[in-house]
Amino acid sequence: MIRFFVTPQDIFDNTIKLSIEDTKHVRSLRLRPEETFIACDGTGSDYICKLGERDGGTVAEFIDRQSSVGEPTIKCSVYMAYSKGDRLDYAVQKSVELGVHQIILFESERCVAVPKDIPKRVSRLQRIALETAKLSNRGIVPKVTSGGKLSSVLDKVSADSAQTSNLALFFYECENRVSIRDILEQRLLAPFESECCGTKSVSIITGPEGGFEPHEADLAKSKGIATVSLGTRILRSETAPVIALAAVMYHTGNL
Amino acid sequence: MIRFFVTPQDIFDNTIKLSIEDTKHVRSLRLRPEETFIACDGTGSDYICKLGERDGGTVAEFIDRQSSVGEPTIKCSVYMAYSKGDRLDYAVQKSVELGVHQIILFESERCVAVPKDIPKRVSRLQRIALETAKLSNRGIVPKVTSGGKLSSVLDKVSADSAQTSNLALFFYECENRVSIRDILEQRLLAPFESECCGTKSVSIITGPEGGFEPHEADLAKSKGIATVSLGTRILRSETAPVIALAAVMYHTGNL
Repeated sequence: MIRFFVTPQDIFDNTIKLSIEDTKHVRSLRLRPEETFIACDGTGSDYICKLGERDGGTVAEFIDRQSSVGEPTIKCSVYMAYSKGDRLDYAVQKSVELGVHQIILFESERCVAVPKDIPKRVSRLQRIALETAKLSNRGIVPKVTSGGKLSSVLDKVSADSAQTSNLALFFYECENRVSIRDILEQRLLAPFESECCGTKSVSIITGPEGGFEPHEADLAKSKGIATVSLGTRILRSETAPVIALAAVMYHTGNL
Repeated sequence: MIRFFVTPQDIFDNTIKLSIEDTKHVRSLRLRPEETFIACDGTGSDYICKLGERDGGTVAEFIDRQSSVGEPTIKCSVYMAYSKGDRLDYAVQKSVELGVHQIILFESERCVAVPKDIPKRVSRLQRIALETAKLSNRGIVPKVTSGGKLSSVLDKVSADSAQTSNLALFFYECENRVSIRDILEQRLLAPFESECCGTKSVSIITGPEGGFEPHEADLAKSKGIATVSLGTRILRSETAPVIALAAVMYHTGNL
């Protein structure tokens, strides 16, 4: 079913105000009067709607409300270094399809492609996240933000992990002792337990095309963040965060 | 280290003949005499080489031989329906990064983009597989072939599964009872067991943009192939095979 995102403020007694853009989109679809679509409030509720008219304008009249089924039971944040070309576009699209909670971009030593206009780049990626969330049945639109330098990101993740039940994973290609499977089995509870106790969120940190410098991995370790391997094959910078996310979703029963 | 693929026939006593293309590539890298590179025979052996001269031509002199470390312990075949635009390019690249054994393309009812010149399309995808295998540390170059219609593919997979210890998975978006995790836990042995006994190969079958028709899923079931879900979110046609492959690699200790 066609899905739109609306803000909770746009929801009234039994109607939902659609944005100018969404109204245009709905009209272009030429829905028949009995056809329904979903207006999702972006906080976990789906409103099943049909088109109506009010004060001469198009509104969505809702006929039922249900919980969004597309949200995973675990909150995963992906921290991803700036990469070249359309690699970030790809990684954002695939992460949203897989159920990421938020995406934070950062700058690390080997980054060769930090955008000149970061707000513009972030805004383009946010649009990709919105369009993907509509098509992939998500109950939220994951936020895309810029996190500055790697050191700031590590400080934030380290603080989150100290205060909450967050598991932080720093993917480092020179790590050959600890696999993602080892650490998830040790630190992340089985799916049937994850909703009531234990780890409730995971932070995935991945590097740019050339990977991380050894001193960057040391910095992560010094802040209590585990360095982890993704196997003996070399994954491209846009592939690594998506595969790490897939592993977490699989492990926690969200695939 | 730079990696090339050579055929076993090009390997002599202590030298390896490089193709004209690879010779050009090696020269363009301006390697210093002491710098080494890898010539992989595509069947599981890596030859550590340095450049030499013989009869006025460039050859690779090998100084050591070791097993390729990039091959997973399980053979996964991906059967993927033809998709639009660069979706197949993407799926082939990511599958090779993740350790796929072979990729077979097929035509199903909802395919909207079967290429007019199939051999040309397959040959382009084979080049992507070769380039990706070089960069991702693979010990083989996965073959890309065309498998004809879905019914032929299902016959082949069904026969493979009857004769060998192969697990076949048909990903179907209307399947909501059996998750990939359920079936891998039931049917695929734990990583420490998988090398000595039990399931040795997995066949992943995924559909085009619009998914499979119900009668296509029924046909798979009638041939003893399990229909499986990839979760409550909707994955794009190029994402599904990659995520299914990631799940199998994770489950079998190959990530």
